[in-house]
Amino acid sequence: MRFIEVVDLLGTIAFAVSGALAAFDKRLDPFGIIIIAFVTAAGGGTLRDILLGVYPVSWMTNMNLVYTILICVVITFIFRSFLLKLRTTLFLFDTIGIGFYTVVGLEMGLIAGLHPIICVTLGCITACFGGVIRDILVNEIPVIFRKNIYATACLLGGGAYFIMRKLGVPEGLNFPVAAAIVITIRLLAVYFKIGLPNVYKKVDREE
Amino acid sequence: MRFIEVVDLLGTIAFAVSGALAAFDKRLDPFGIIIIAFVTAAGGGTLRDILLGVYPVSWMTNMNLVYTILICVVITFIFRSFLLKLRTTLFLFDTIGIGFYTVVGLEMGLIAGLHPIICVTLGCITACFGGVIRDILVNEIPVIFRKNIYATACLLGGGAYFIMRKLGVPEGLNFPVAAAIVITIRLLAVYFKIGLPNVYKKVDREE
Amino acid sequence: MRFIEVVDLLGTIAFAVSGALAAFDKRLDPFGIIIIAFVTAAGGGTLRDILLGVYPVSWMTNMNLVYTILICVVITFIFRSFLLKLRTTLFLFDTIGIGFYTVVGLEMGLIAGLHPIICVTLGCITACFGGVIRDILVNEIPVIFRKNIYATACLLGGGAYFIMRKLGVPEGLNFPVAAAIVITIRLLAVYFKIGLPNVYKKVDREE
Repeated sequence: MRFIEVVDLLGTIAFAVSGALAAFDKRLDPFGIIIIAFVTAAGGGTLRDILLGVYPVSWMTNMNLVYTILICVVITFIFRSFLLKLRTTLFLFDTIGIGFYTVVGLEMGLIAGLHPIICVTLGCITACFGGVIRDILVNEIPVIFRKNIYATACLLGGGAYFIMRKLGVPEGLNFPVAAAIVITIRLLAVYFKIGLPNVYKKVDREE
Repeated sequence: MRFIEVVDLLGTIAFAVSGALAAFDKRLDPFGIIIIAFVTAAGGGTLRDILLGVYPVSWMTNMNLVYTILICVVITFIFRSFLLKLRTTLFLFDTIGIGFYTVVGLEMGLIAGLHPIICVTLGCITACFGGVIRDILVNEIPVIFRKNIYATACLLGGGAYFIMRKLGVPEGLNFPVAAAIVITIRLLAVYFKIGLPNVYKKVDREE
Repeated sequence: MRFIEVVDLLGTIAFAVSGALAAFDKRLDPFGIIIIAFVTAAGGGTLRDILLGVYPVSWMTNMNLVYTILICVVITFIFRSFLLKLRTTLFLFDTIGIGFYTVVGLEMGLIAGLHPIICVTLGCITACFGGVIRDILVNEIPVIFRKNIYATACLLGGGAYFIMRKLGVPEGLNFPVAAAIVITIRLLAVYFKIGLPNVYKKVDREE
């Protein structure tokens, strides 16, 4: 559990910064910024805990996580003019976050003894739903439906974990490699502008 | 429980097809289609399980449900050009889904020993909230607030169940009749364009 | 617990009326009005119960709460033309609601033995998230992100509770004073048009 706690912390930092930057971008007030940073960092894990029935949900008894998010918001606030200039910063932190969180969610599913497909799904939920709830709250189309590889990267990284496991790769190597695969796929996909294949011919949209 | 499992499966198929069709309609990518199909089919039941405290939520330990949804997405995909031509297909599958899911949710409430009003509410939640979450994710006005009989059909079917029960109708007959009532009311309401009564006179909208 | 039950009831009434008025304002059908009133009154407490793992969530085994909400909807409906004329009525009921609910949520956190920061957060969630879910359902920007003191009032009231507690103020006095502080701060903030400080200089919005 030691390694996974470090990964969880890194994911929390990445997502709290990413959430705070998104909230600055939307010009929310200080309180709104804290909420969005918190939801982005803790939302996916909260949904995972609720689905698994882990109570009380992790951030409730983990003050370190709460303080980490608050400190991230303050630091992001101080360096915001610097961070906002770098158009790619928000994207980078978000990508690092989904890589780490996919592994954390997957690990939780393994501990609960669930089927590999469900474990990978939990990884995706942990990684993606903080961002989804954030987008719903600020009234944007959720990140997973925008036209690029996002949840798909989590799926592939999660799948790679189980293949490596079958091949006998030790856990200590397996988890960081799976996180690296998620991050690499998303980075490459955005760099080379790879999206998922379009499955539609011209069909009139009907409601 | 045997009968209710069959009903649950039929509802899952109907909603997975309905969700996949809605996602095609919105031109989501393949991954988005799977998510929307899954949320539409499993969302209402997941919320019901969360509210009841049934853990882990049903789809987590029920791989058949997961496979059923995936197969439905593939089949819907193959026949999509055919299905999309039939404007009424999406509506029909959705209507069959709410009929079956109302009964499943109601049954779960009965097993938990809850008050009839709460049981009917759970039936409505099971039937309607998959669609509500789907609509929130694709940024539409949730289905229950569009101007037609939807949740009302679930309410009436759920109410009919308890009346039939009081009258001594056996369970085996009671459940399918309640589902049929939900489906019939919705079909008739749409066919004859019956909406709920408008309760407003001209009043200026104030914010 | 006696006092907290009265406070809970008052908050429920205030929020049910506030929700029903908001639904009238949106011209929803009768069923939609009941759903919105219910979600506004019970949504925050439901999320709190889910996060804490209190099952089944409170309204499921509390028919008095269900009947209270239904009666409030009917009474609000009868007097709607009168209530809608008073532009401030919706605001007043909403404000009274957040005051009472902040105290109820905080109390639940104390009973669960959680950290003061988490208790205050639970107070905010209980008070604010019914309104947030209501706003998401009717497709508005959630109330906590509109530019005025809202959740901040809950935070300050919750903080005041713990300061008074440290100072040895008895519980029976502490709770009503904390609720009064929340209500007073929000009333004063709106009356004097006080918002949270704007933390932005001119920065181009980037997506």
